[in-house]
Amino acid sequence: MAIVMYDLVGRDDRRFSPNCWRTRMALAHKGLDHEALPTRFTEIPEIEGGQVKTVPALRDGDRLIVDSWAIAQYLEQAYPERPSLFGGVGGEQVTRFVQSWCVAMLHSELVRVIVADIWLHLTPQDQDYFRSSREKRFGRTLEEVQAGREERMEGFRNSLQPLRMTLKDAPFLGGQQPLYADYLAFGAFQWARVISPFRILAEDDPLKAWFERCPDLHGGIGRSAPGYD
Amino acid sequence: MAIVMYDLVGRDDRRFSPNCWRTRMALAHKGLDHEALPTRFTEIPEIEGGQVKTVPALRDGDRLIVDSWAIAQYLEQAYPERPSLFGGVGGEQVTRFVQSWCVAMLHSELVRVIVADIWLHLTPQDQDYFRSSREKRFGRTLEEVQAGREERMEGFRNSLQPLRMTLKDAPFLGGQQPLYADYLAFGAFQWARVISPFRILAEDDPLKAWFERCPDLHGGIGRSAPGYD
Repeated sequence: MAIVMYDLVGRDDRRFSPNCWRTRMALAHKGLDHEALPTRFTEIPEIEGGQVKTVPALRDGDRLIVDSWAIAQYLEQAYPERPSLFGGVGGEQVTRFVQSWCVAMLHSELVRVIVADIWLHLTPQDQDYFRSSREKRFGRTLEEVQAGREERMEGFRNSLQPLRMTLKDAPFLGGQQPLYADYLAFGAFQWARVISPFRILAEDDPLKAWFERCPDLHGGIGRSAPGYD
Repeated sequence: MAIVMYDLVGRDDRRFSPNCWRTRMALAHKGLDHEALPTRFTEIPEIEGGQVKTVPALRDGDRLIVDSWAIAQYLEQAYPERPSLFGGVGGEQVTRFVQSWCVAMLHSELVRVIVADIWLHLTPQDQDYFRSSREKRFGRTLEEVQAGREERMEGFRNSLQPLRMTLKDAPFLGGQQPLYADYLAFGAFQWARVISPFRILAEDDPLKAWFERCPDLHGGIGRSAPGYD
């Protein structure tokens, strides 16, 4: 039986979750047959007999793995003969820092840039859930959170400097070939690309070359996904 | 002949260069006999027959290697039987991102916190060189650059969140044991510790445990170096 991953979906088959993109890219990197099962926010409690609270979640035979990092570790251990996601034990450890940076710097900022756009791309039932849960978290309306995003872009783009510096010397964070570290950062940008027409990177940003390279990987799964371009 | 590294020094044997600390820790990690030769800014043009413009520089037999990253790569290749600095090829690639983050986020901010303190700890000849070259770079006096550092600390400490998140799950960026990634970040903090009485981390910062762990590594070379505590 092929591997099943539960993949967050909005309207029009928009697969927007950054954490799910990490997992999809990891599965593709390993060359593993899988089905990315479209799953709405409000459907999550129904999958896998209620054992799952967040996606991505992965069903591989009798194994159920939840959380994108746990999934990446699982895939690396379960399929060691396939291309490595980390390039060794040190790579796996140090990739944790890239993940922390992505969560602390990319996700936390980007959510404030696209949160109302996410809402616009959800089905009505998910819209209610999303608005109430996120407005409670932010203490403001989604539109208030997103307002003023143009003014925040300069600071955000400056904060990408570590990525820019690293990608000056090699096409991927993984060097000549992508590693899971690339998928961590790509997931964040792909999240925005799928769900929002707002441009995250300036046209002349040297990061653009890397950002345009990633969706073409592994048969172009990032490129062919419904989104904005 | 033992390996010689040229190590930036101020007054009272203060070894303050963050890039030199990376190299010292890397040599100690590899367990390689070496001499860390104290070298003042104004002495650099005189070492190795004028071939060297920056420290750290490493002399190993007939090999001369300049630049801390090139040195780390060299040590890993030349001494593969010794403990690895990267834990594999993926580790080496992804560690480039940690280095970029350290340079872009730690060094660029910390220099504005300690630059006048550095000057205070240099010999008179180095003081002249340092003041004129750095004031030209900043377009302001060293004291003006450093002024207001108390107000900048909240933002700086917030920017350490990726480090904090990663070190919540393991004692080192390298996991249970340190890797070169740890020395990159440690070098920046040690720079400040050696040269400035100003406290970079808040007392209750969870990062403190890691920061106190690093100077005790490898026989406590970070701890025993003249500095502030």
